[in-house]
Amino acid sequence: MPMNPYEQDGALFYPVRVYYEDTDAGGVVYHANYLKFCERARTEWLRRLGAGRDFLREDFGLIFVVRRASIDWRKPARLDELLMVETRLLSLGKVRMHMRQTVTRDGVLLATIDIELVCIDQQKFVPVSLPDVLVAKLPPVPRTEEPK
Amino acid sequence: MPMNPYEQDGALFYPVRVYYEDTDAGGVVYHANYLKFCERARTEWLRRLGAGRDFLREDFGLIFVVRRASIDWRKPARLDELLMVETRLLSLGKVRMHMRQTVTRDGVLLATIDIELVCIDQQKFVPVSLPDVLVAKLPPVPRTEEPK
Amino acid sequence: MPMNPYEQDGALFYPVRVYYEDTDAGGVVYHANYLKFCERARTEWLRRLGAGRDFLREDFGLIFVVRRASIDWRKPARLDELLMVETRLLSLGKVRMHMRQTVTRDGVLLATIDIELVCIDQQKFVPVSLPDVLVAKLPPVPRTEEPK
Amino acid sequence: MPMNPYEQDGALFYPVRVYYEDTDAGGVVYHANYLKFCERARTEWLRRLGAGRDFLREDFGLIFVVRRASIDWRKPARLDELLMVETRLLSLGKVRMHMRQTVTRDGVLLATIDIELVCIDQQKFVPVSLPDVLVAKLPPVPRTEEPK
Repeated sequence: MPMNPYEQDGALFYPVRVYYEDTDAGGVVYHANYLKFCERARTEWLRRLGAGRDFLREDFGLIFVVRRASIDWRKPARLDELLMVETRLLSLGKVRMHMRQTVTRDGVLLATIDIELVCIDQQKFVPVSLPDVLVAKLPPVPRTEEPK
Repeated sequence: MPMNPYEQDGALFYPVRVYYEDTDAGGVVYHANYLKFCERARTEWLRRLGAGRDFLREDFGLIFVVRRASIDWRKPARLDELLMVETRLLSLGKVRMHMRQTVTRDGVLLATIDIELVCIDQQKFVPVSLPDVLVAKLPPVPRTEEPK
Repeated sequence: MPMNPYEQDGALFYPVRVYYEDTDAGGVVYHANYLKFCERARTEWLRRLGAGRDFLREDFGLIFVVRRASIDWRKPARLDELLMVETRLLSLGKVRMHMRQTVTRDGVLLATIDIELVCIDQQKFVPVSLPDVLVAKLPPVPRTEEPK
Repeated sequence: MPMNPYEQDGALFYPVRVYYEDTDAGGVVYHANYLKFCERARTEWLRRLGAGRDFLREDFGLIFVVRRASIDWRKPARLDELLMVETRLLSLGKVRMHMRQTVTRDGVLLATIDIELVCIDQQKFVPVSLPDVLVAKLPPVPRTEEPK
């Protein structure tokens, strides 16, 4: 049964139940689906901060796109297990956010995803600066220069 | 934010948040994904009845497979909407269950799925009778003769 | 290795190789994914007729949406198998098409999908008449009165 | 229309047509689906080498699992586009392969995926040495010490 997400120590904890759709014939969660779980968790993380899609898309015409990711799959997850996705902001650039997400099961680390998101104009699909009102909502993290 | 499923009038109500993974370039939920939402809801419906995968697979070596479905997509669902899947058992045969599932948004009907599940031996992939202990857990519904 | 689709007797035959992404922990193709295979095949069927997305979307602002489907899953498909999707137009209404699609493996029927598509204006999401130039491209089939 | 994969300069070129299932409400290919495209391409790459699933699973009880990936999404892909996935072996360890895969459209680079695969026993889910008969089928590449 899904449980509600909760915040702790500046991170969001988002539970994911593994259904048939998530698994493959190897009997485990299909590797690409960890990215789906993480995207669900980031969406709720933004919503919790008061920066859900309404805010970003309707007020600013902005969306976040995934620019880079490093994924480390350590152990498999299986049908019907209850996983926990922890989502944490690591640093902030002018147009991007760096986040770390981990997927665990009963405290055992299954996968780590380091991800870079870029804020773009949803019409023009070009990067734009994170709006100050969004930055003000985010947890305090180091500011980085933009590598590009 | 996902909310917890709940039972009412013999049906299970299972909330689904629409994420990017569920949508397509038409801006709406991809039609096949309604089947995913319904499978999630049926899984929780069985779990609620005390007939989760542990019970079925480990104690009996059984799984349910989808044998037939009729789907009526009436209105589109969109990104970030909160949908509700209602799951109800309609009738019971010797080896099969007939269920009706509806997907609504704020009480507006988006889709209806009538579905026939067959209980099969997970090793041999052949139909087997629903175990009495499972039937005893199910809500009282008409018993049907097997059509085929 | 994917092979190219081909036409025969007024139907399009579209081959689909089963990859891990298509399967689930039951060791078989996940039931909802048959709808994906069929949508791929219909897309190529329309393209063959000279009515690909460019034609429909750019010239007419139209898309087809799936309105109803009846699906009969008879036998499972497994990892790495080569399936064949046969796509055939059954009848034509003012705003809709009825099609039958079958999925076979070495001539053995695995699933049948009867599907109703409605032609809609992609901006307003309301049904519109099939353009005459599209109808002229379609194979000759019975014309039906619109049921709803 | 899908075209057949082909080999050139020791790499496999695998074409992918973008269908609705691959896209999201942002109008572009959903980021996680690049991993699906790459897995399809690697499967065909292995099959071409005479090391398809039959060979690996049936003769050796082995499967490859994705252990790490670094993904760089540079430009979006859109509905109906024809993409090309280039797959190349970079180096070989005792139990793992490092590969580079790129996704292009008309020669324009959309995404790069660097991926590490580990050969595991499909029953025990533990790493095992790449069989010599498999190594003999692979293109000549540097041998690396195992990092972990």
